[in-house]
Amino acid sequence: MIIKLSQSSTDMALKHLVKWFAQQDVEARQINWGAQVLLVTSSKWKGDADYLKSIDGVESVTEMTADYQLCTRKFQPQDTVIDLGDGVIFGRGATVMMAGPCAVESEDQVMRTAEFLRSKFDIKVFRAGAFKPRTSPYTFQGLADEGLNLLAKVRKEFGMKIITEVKDTTHLAAVADVADIIQIGTKAMYNFSLLAMCGQLKQPIVLKRGFMTTIKEFLQAADFILSSGNSKVILCERGIRSFEPQTRFCLDVCSAALIKELSHLPIVLDPSHAMGIAAQVPLVAQSAAALGVDGLLIETHPDPANAKSDKEQALSFEEFGRIVPVLDKICTAVGRRLIA
Amino acid sequence: MIIKLSQSSTDMALKHLVKWFAQQDVEARQINWGAQVLLVTSSKWKGDADYLKSIDGVESVTEMTADYQLCTRKFQPQDTVIDLGDGVIFGRGATVMMAGPCAVESEDQVMRTAEFLRSKFDIKVFRAGAFKPRTSPYTFQGLADEGLNLLAKVRKEFGMKIITEVKDTTHLAAVADVADIIQIGTKAMYNFSLLAMCGQLKQPIVLKRGFMTTIKEFLQAADFILSSGNSKVILCERGIRSFEPQTRFCLDVCSAALIKELSHLPIVLDPSHAMGIAAQVPLVAQSAAALGVDGLLIETHPDPANAKSDKEQALSFEEFGRIVPVLDKICTAVGRRLIA
Amino acid sequence: MIIKLSQSSTDMALKHLVKWFAQQDVEARQINWGAQVLLVTSSKWKGDADYLKSIDGVESVTEMTADYQLCTRKFQPQDTVIDLGDGVIFGRGATVMMAGPCAVESEDQVMRTAEFLRSKFDIKVFRAGAFKPRTSPYTFQGLADEGLNLLAKVRKEFGMKIITEVKDTTHLAAVADVADIIQIGTKAMYNFSLLAMCGQLKQPIVLKRGFMTTIKEFLQAADFILSSGNSKVILCERGIRSFEPQTRFCLDVCSAALIKELSHLPIVLDPSHAMGIAAQVPLVAQSAAALGVDGLLIETHPDPANAKSDKEQALSFEEFGRIVPVLDKICTAVGRRLIA
Amino acid sequence: MIIKLSQSSTDMALKHLVKWFAQQDVEARQINWGAQVLLVTSSKWKGDADYLKSIDGVESVTEMTADYQLCTRKFQPQDTVIDLGDGVIFGRGATVMMAGPCAVESEDQVMRTAEFLRSKFDIKVFRAGAFKPRTSPYTFQGLADEGLNLLAKVRKEFGMKIITEVKDTTHLAAVADVADIIQIGTKAMYNFSLLAMCGQLKQPIVLKRGFMTTIKEFLQAADFILSSGNSKVILCERGIRSFEPQTRFCLDVCSAALIKELSHLPIVLDPSHAMGIAAQVPLVAQSAAALGVDGLLIETHPDPANAKSDKEQALSFEEFGRIVPVLDKICTAVGRRLIA
Repeated sequence: MIIKLSQSSTDMALKHLVKWFAQQDVEARQINWGAQVLLVTSSKWKGDADYLKSIDGVESVTEMTADYQLCTRKFQPQDTVIDLGDGVIFGRGATVMMAGPCAVESEDQVMRTAEFLRSKFDIKVFRAGAFKPRTSPYTFQGLADEGLNLLAKVRKEFGMKIITEVKDTTHLAAVADVADIIQIGTKAMYNFSLLAMCGQLKQPIVLKRGFMTTIKEFLQAADFILSSGNSKVILCERGIRSFEPQTRFCLDVCSAALIKELSHLPIVLDPSHAMGIAAQVPLVAQSAAALGVDGLLIETHPDPANAKSDKEQALSFEEFGRIVPVLDKICTAVGRRLIA
Repeated sequence: MIIKLSQSSTDMALKHLVKWFAQQDVEARQINWGAQVLLVTSSKWKGDADYLKSIDGVESVTEMTADYQLCTRKFQPQDTVIDLGDGVIFGRGATVMMAGPCAVESEDQVMRTAEFLRSKFDIKVFRAGAFKPRTSPYTFQGLADEGLNLLAKVRKEFGMKIITEVKDTTHLAAVADVADIIQIGTKAMYNFSLLAMCGQLKQPIVLKRGFMTTIKEFLQAADFILSSGNSKVILCERGIRSFEPQTRFCLDVCSAALIKELSHLPIVLDPSHAMGIAAQVPLVAQSAAALGVDGLLIETHPDPANAKSDKEQALSFEEFGRIVPVLDKICTAVGRRLIA
Repeated sequence: MIIKLSQSSTDMALKHLVKWFAQQDVEARQINWGAQVLLVTSSKWKGDADYLKSIDGVESVTEMTADYQLCTRKFQPQDTVIDLGDGVIFGRGATVMMAGPCAVESEDQVMRTAEFLRSKFDIKVFRAGAFKPRTSPYTFQGLADEGLNLLAKVRKEFGMKIITEVKDTTHLAAVADVADIIQIGTKAMYNFSLLAMCGQLKQPIVLKRGFMTTIKEFLQAADFILSSGNSKVILCERGIRSFEPQTRFCLDVCSAALIKELSHLPIVLDPSHAMGIAAQVPLVAQSAAALGVDGLLIETHPDPANAKSDKEQALSFEEFGRIVPVLDKICTAVGRRLIA
Repeated sequence: MIIKLSQSSTDMALKHLVKWFAQQDVEARQINWGAQVLLVTSSKWKGDADYLKSIDGVESVTEMTADYQLCTRKFQPQDTVIDLGDGVIFGRGATVMMAGPCAVESEDQVMRTAEFLRSKFDIKVFRAGAFKPRTSPYTFQGLADEGLNLLAKVRKEFGMKIITEVKDTTHLAAVADVADIIQIGTKAMYNFSLLAMCGQLKQPIVLKRGFMTTIKEFLQAADFILSSGNSKVILCERGIRSFEPQTRFCLDVCSAALIKELSHLPIVLDPSHAMGIAAQVPLVAQSAAALGVDGLLIETHPDPANAKSDKEQALSFEEFGRIVPVLDKICTAVGRRLIA
């Protein structure tokens, strides 16, 4: 249950409610939500909503049935809009193209890619990982701090926004120093300490759905960030694991469609990781764009054959160049505009 | 391995090869492929392709690595085109809209639906099931022969093509009497006797992928039909079963994208069954159309709330009416035209 | 809802109820259950149970919440026991070992296997398929009628019970002529015409769970057979499809454990198909036996390396010989006895 | 590829090899393996093994095909044995029972449970979590440091070994101060920084398989720990996520059986989390024990109905008491002994 206090009389109501919940032995978490204060109990708690509504200084009470609360349209019907400036806006009819290589590999590689994306298509958000969560301990794990420095250089030289991944809490501060948008990867979605710490940052957080995660758990993870104080969460569907061995993952467009109804948070799709095979990424990107989503994450690399990670799925510049105008037309067809 | 005999000298080569294979104790199946004759061995057999190519009357030899053969682009690089006349064509840049209710319920229901589809949108293919593979023995199983009669009436009155489902071999003849296109449902895809019998028919067969079927098994099922003599197979991705409980199935756009490269057969998508929730079917249909497929199967019903099967996923006429122009624009955006 | 009529006054009550249901426009299916008559409505129908109970000639009324009814312990608390004579009994603390090759390949092969099983371990049930549902059209599909004749010979010479698979309705009569137990394979579980026809036979039916089938759908399939008049259904868990590529399937011991509580029907396990790798089949068979089930299906072949189907999973006679005493001890440990 | 240096001449060979690999521009990681030193390259690197073997001071060269290396029987054929003293030994024919509640909730709760387990069954390893990775931010997250103190008290009073979970790196040091065995939970298995840090500890690490993790990724995660210097890794299969909604997870006995062949590391099973329903946990525990594994993790609670987490799956003391003698007999039947 979510109790929203009115701005004018927060202190008094808060004092009263904290005492009241303590008497009832019910945990109610105090959360800053924009300029307002919320008290949130477990959704399983079924208290007397009418009484709570009657308290002076209580603006609204939302009774929940689902285990996720702050991210729901039941609590906030209108779309969350996240505006990073320079025309990069998530959640108001725009589809933001975020592109770049899987990993930062070298200065030459990132600068060439950024130059291509910015000069040819005016792509405004550059993606690349400095900390790579690789499953093998014997392969390239990312350039780490050196990679972050190169991303800072991309931002400075090309005026692009940077989205980059955090693997775990050990390097979150370093990532937060550089990133305009912080990405929590599919393998870190259940790292609840990381979620809580991202909830204390100012940047938008792209939260990738775990590839084995139900919608319920995904939205609960979003609530972890939201309830820690950061309301700028962007959901990302990036493919779930299925029984099919010939594709890397399975882009779950049905869940994405449902999430658009369940949650007010922006949602972006990652066709590159879902498909995992460059030849088919453009088709899947088309499919993703047609869903009417708030953004796309697409991998491109100056020399895919020699990429240090995920080389099978990176588009060459030529392939990337061919897909942009098609995506633009699809966005128009579904009443949106491609930010690129 | 596929050995294609030249039309001019089939008999002689055939005689020679049959004898040769018998001597080697290798099973080679004789298949009529259009006007030509093929001999097909298990793909595991690795014989002397050079020798076979050198035989008089052998036009080509295709060595296979996959377990499916006739459906592959390795055997036939160009798209299979299936033309039913009246502008209904699968496989040449068209996306054929196939619409109608899940099940034939009554004369009023099918006639009203057909009238709506034909007069408002010039939909050319009417879908509805007379034999329903329901999982509960205590619920509506379809009108059976009476349903087929009503479908025949739709065809006669509205000049629409009829696609309807066959559950198993017991009623295949009856279905084949009425249907322009025969649909093998997801639960019947492993019914190999049914596949073989459909291979002896003249009609196109829409083969739905089993909801937990790999691409490999799906294309092997297609080969069952093709190798029995019917080359008019249309593949259908209709959603796979995942771990997610809030959606009915998961439309596997990644597999569909890959199948377009692996096989020359047309492919259509069924967003209604995949999503299973009417409110989200339009978004998923958009996603499906953007993949650039040869057709779409969409359920619509004059009164979804009272439909006798799958009522959660049927679009009302109003909802259906809103989605058609959007799909039309998406098809145009991806270089195709919507047949509707 | 299940209405059971008392034997003494069936006719009168039936007449009354049929009329009453017709007036209510509710479908109620009439089913022979042993010597009694049932009327079964969809489980979604929520009628006035108290009124129904009050009708003369109504013995009991079972209100259902699940979509499966006749197979539940709610309807019949005590275990169904299926006794085939000669000590072959499913459902009374016995674990029946059913063994043999995947497919009938030749007289020599089946006779050698039967001789081995009968003389060394007194195995009483011989398993082998004459009709094989193979996914490739270019591989061995079974010996068909010739295979059935060989199975008849095994029965005659060794006095073993025969369990063999039916793929679809086209050859059910032939299989029923020979089989003591008819097996519906995992790929045929959704063949509802086949289920209904098996419901009209006298033999026990081993119903294999589809590898993509929920417990609910599995038990509904059982209800298809039960509601058609055959109460001798034996459930079989044989592995579900997961995301793991290194094992053939995944034996779902958790579902099997739950099914034992939900249903009164006997349940048997098939470790061979689940594991798919001979070296690990004994361990998985141990796991299966420890669950306290009514039977095991294990594949063994005189020459696994040259088996015509599923050769990777067949145990050699030596391997089979080693596992029997271990399974015997496990059965004892869990309070059962191994019938072998 | 794994190059093992002989103890007598490590320094010289190491110097030579480091230089040689640098010249080849191949990354080779230096790893302490017991008293010896290894150089490990990516398994994709296919270098001249014969040359490497010929170098003075090289004891052995293992060429790998799989992406996991140190955990394989190819590298180390014999079982890894982990002996914690007091008869707690993983990997030499013993099945160690590890029992306790899901979470530490209060002093009374853990002391009562430990007293019960120790006095009635001589259970030697106590399990309970102080840091709980809960998916909802609004529910009990564990007692944290206070919980660890209570676990230390259990160890002191009852002489039991403590196994407890670490969620992420933020509290690893605190956990390591108290735990005899550190458990990495299913949701943390992809936390590679955590794996590496656990690789620098002295304690055995129970690594739980992610619930949608392939065997390959699971064993790669084990290699992360091993390659960081801790050879005491115990694998744990705890159920995978399937499409079945009625069970919590699906205990993957087939994968567990295969892992026993692929890896020399001990393996334990967790029937409680896999099944998720207390009534069926005993059956699944039986199944797990019969697989011949090195340990079992079973949840028991003095008052399951009021447990603060996972209450559905905790056994009451009475239920726990009934299953121990059965598990003991099963272990004997498969040639092992239950440590309890």
